[in-house]
Amino acid sequence: MARKVGSVGSVTAEAILTEGCKLFARFGYAAVSMRQIAAAVGVQASAIYQHYPNKQEILVAILNAHMDALLKAWDDEVCDEDAAAALERFVRFHIRYHISRPDEVFLSYMELRSLEDQGFRIIERKRHTYESVAKTILRHGTEDGTFSVSDPHVAAMAILAMLTGVNTWYRSDGRLSQQKIEELYIGMVMGSVGLTAAPKE
Amino acid sequence: MARKVGSVGSVTAEAILTEGCKLFARFGYAAVSMRQIAAAVGVQASAIYQHYPNKQEILVAILNAHMDALLKAWDDEVCDEDAAAALERFVRFHIRYHISRPDEVFLSYMELRSLEDQGFRIIERKRHTYESVAKTILRHGTEDGTFSVSDPHVAAMAILAMLTGVNTWYRSDGRLSQQKIEELYIGMVMGSVGLTAAPKE
Repeated sequence: MARKVGSVGSVTAEAILTEGCKLFARFGYAAVSMRQIAAAVGVQASAIYQHYPNKQEILVAILNAHMDALLKAWDDEVCDEDAAAALERFVRFHIRYHISRPDEVFLSYMELRSLEDQGFRIIERKRHTYESVAKTILRHGTEDGTFSVSDPHVAAMAILAMLTGVNTWYRSDGRLSQQKIEELYIGMVMGSVGLTAAPKE
Repeated sequence: MARKVGSVGSVTAEAILTEGCKLFARFGYAAVSMRQIAAAVGVQASAIYQHYPNKQEILVAILNAHMDALLKAWDDEVCDEDAAAALERFVRFHIRYHISRPDEVFLSYMELRSLEDQGFRIIERKRHTYESVAKTILRHGTEDGTFSVSDPHVAAMAILAMLTGVNTWYRSDGRLSQQKIEELYIGMVMGSVGLTAAPKE
């Protein structure tokens, strides 16, 4: 029976990114070898090179796929709404999206240092695109008088860091439900832009 | 002339931590060898082992020194004041202290994964002590009615992440002075705990 090369190949390519992401997150990019990734995927090292010429391309592919999926997921979310509702939607979206992908999020902050020029430019541009989502919401809401924000750029960076920080302490079996965490952060974020939104108890 | 062994030794021990910190921050703990650290310090690899029996002890010593210095610096800050003033002081302190030590801060978030049991417990306890500073300010301010905070634990973690996030984008030659950044964050933090503090323009 003829082997379905394309299909097997794409499964392998995907497994390389999945296992590469786990290994990089655990040991750091510089400490992981192509051979280790191959072993985790369950193929010979030579099979990896059919998909990715070097480790750098694997890192870029992981971070690129993460950013593309994040931007696509946000695009799927968006609808017409006022600034306060948009900010609330963004807070929920960001927390929900990021706590379900701890390794990718960890890598995409920690291994920016390991990206070479071209890869860095690609990922950095997509990060800026995502940051712009928050900045645009804040700028519109400030212009229409909903928010009281002196510097939408700094406010966006502050809010993004606050929200991504959930990943450092969130446990799915912790004392707070994800829903409750979202409510608490919505309350704080709304307060930080000058709105009072009593969190639901 | 007799060599002042103690003095030279303590200079070397300090240099090991300084160079180790830089190398770990640049390449990740797992990718750095004792030999590389020795080369950066400018001594033979064998000289390193006179001070630290293994790489793990160097990582623990770096993170431990960072946490001790941070806790000591905060102790030096504290005076009697109301909850709002204490929170404002804490925001200024945290931003100022952390942006001047980017490598240590990066490591103390990224390389928690690389700490073995005993070292992890030591560092984790000191991290909790520092987090408790923020939690205590928020709890007192909530109890006396200054703040409107539903969950001081979550609020502290959110504020700490927001503040530490400055390190990801701050440049000393950027468009905003450190003073201005502190003012912007104070405004947002005060808002996030239900106080209105118009940031100074």
